[in-house]
Amino acid sequence: MTKKRTVFFISDRTGITAETLGHSLLTQFDVELDLVTLPFIDNAERAHAAIAQIEQANVVSGERSLIFSTVIDSEVRSILRTADAVLFDFFETFIAPLERELELSSTHTVGRSHGVVDNSMYDIRIDAMNYALNHDDGVTTHHYTQADVILVGVSRSGKTPACIYLALQYGIYAANYPLTEEDLDEGRFPEALSQYRDKLYGLSIRPDRLEQIRGQRRPNSRYASPRQCQYEVARAEALFRKQRIPYINTTTMSIEEIATTILHERKLKRRLY
Amino acid sequence: MTKKRTVFFISDRTGITAETLGHSLLTQFDVELDLVTLPFIDNAERAHAAIAQIEQANVVSGERSLIFSTVIDSEVRSILRTADAVLFDFFETFIAPLERELELSSTHTVGRSHGVVDNSMYDIRIDAMNYALNHDDGVTTHHYTQADVILVGVSRSGKTPACIYLALQYGIYAANYPLTEEDLDEGRFPEALSQYRDKLYGLSIRPDRLEQIRGQRRPNSRYASPRQCQYEVARAEALFRKQRIPYINTTTMSIEEIATTILHERKLKRRLY
Repeated sequence: MTKKRTVFFISDRTGITAETLGHSLLTQFDVELDLVTLPFIDNAERAHAAIAQIEQANVVSGERSLIFSTVIDSEVRSILRTADAVLFDFFETFIAPLERELELSSTHTVGRSHGVVDNSMYDIRIDAMNYALNHDDGVTTHHYTQADVILVGVSRSGKTPACIYLALQYGIYAANYPLTEEDLDEGRFPEALSQYRDKLYGLSIRPDRLEQIRGQRRPNSRYASPRQCQYEVARAEALFRKQRIPYINTTTMSIEEIATTILHERKLKRRLY
Repeated sequence: MTKKRTVFFISDRTGITAETLGHSLLTQFDVELDLVTLPFIDNAERAHAAIAQIEQANVVSGERSLIFSTVIDSEVRSILRTADAVLFDFFETFIAPLERELELSSTHTVGRSHGVVDNSMYDIRIDAMNYALNHDDGVTTHHYTQADVILVGVSRSGKTPACIYLALQYGIYAANYPLTEEDLDEGRFPEALSQYRDKLYGLSIRPDRLEQIRGQRRPNSRYASPRQCQYEVARAEALFRKQRIPYINTTTMSIEEIATTILHERKLKRRLY
């Protein structure tokens, strides 16, 4: 059994920012690591418990652990500095130059980021998410007037996760409509959609990947067959081109990339920043 | 009209990491800023276009802009360094010490973080999200055996967004069940739930906040009345205590905090890191 070095993501809130930062750096190295997130480290007692855990990991792996910290509280940070570990202290690194540039002192307040939310922001996210859920998969074509964007594409081209992510991250009202065989055969959008042409955005996907995704849900079905997937994708793309609807191929994109591409290409006005 | 300083979040991928990091720093200052995200800045041409936009912002505001960059490509980064702006370069700042500590060279590869995803990771997220959507609001109580956790609480206590976030961020299979008036009156969980007691986690909320949330959906209804909200919350909490189900009060928590708290308190095994 190989002993892997341990990486700790430490935060006084959720640790999501520390993880994101750490990942974007660590994926640059071809090395196997054990990852541990310690969220809500917001007082001295928890900081000392974290130190104990880190020192134990050092013993197990025989190497100094790495720490990516987004902790804001100065007492907790000073305790973390005592760890026998390599500390990447995000706050420490950037806050002083930022204070100099802004000619302001930081408030050293925990948790304004993912923290004590103001209700209006929470309400926007939830409202946008409910909109996405209520207008998922063409279940209702009412209220399309409210939509910031309507994603269209064949079944399993990535519409639902993109809509939900647009809601959660950006507060965008995104509906989605799965192209039916009838739409594809006839080569046109249904009435309910054509009046909102300016809001449409197409998602496409490589047929072999579509086969794979559909096959996981309904193995050996006509729905997941190479022939059907090829046909649907070809017809959908032809429809997008004919109707001059912008579209992207989602095959190698993450949910974040699909959502962000739509946001920027459609120049949607985000409600959350 | 006041001239606000502009902050640019620049990335060769989605810009979400740059925004998250930048926010967590900027929320420490009591200052109004214009925020601009420039995603997908992944070649020299786009980098030069970004520079032009930054210099225009400098002219408009009369102050140097701030740049938070997570760009990995070294050519793009060297172009960004020519901007008349304050550059916070995450990659530059942390990668060299990390290379020294790991005794490895970084691969300088763009986009492994939110980037070119391996399909298995995409599939886990989508699968977990579909699970959440198919087991939302008690629509089906089948397949609870598959659930990692089942959130219970009164209507509008934050169950759905928490389930979806658990799926997207952590690959957790989370179902949710809204307590009915019958459940609350009788002070017990329905049969379908009681056999999964170990998976249950309660969400509660302050009655006045519940009133507000429900009132936005159904103003002046019995559902949103102070009396009804107080009654439901009191009965739900009594039920959690009686059945020894852990629960949290979500009133002042963000979606991320609710999800992360559940993950850690229930010691759920995440499928994504």
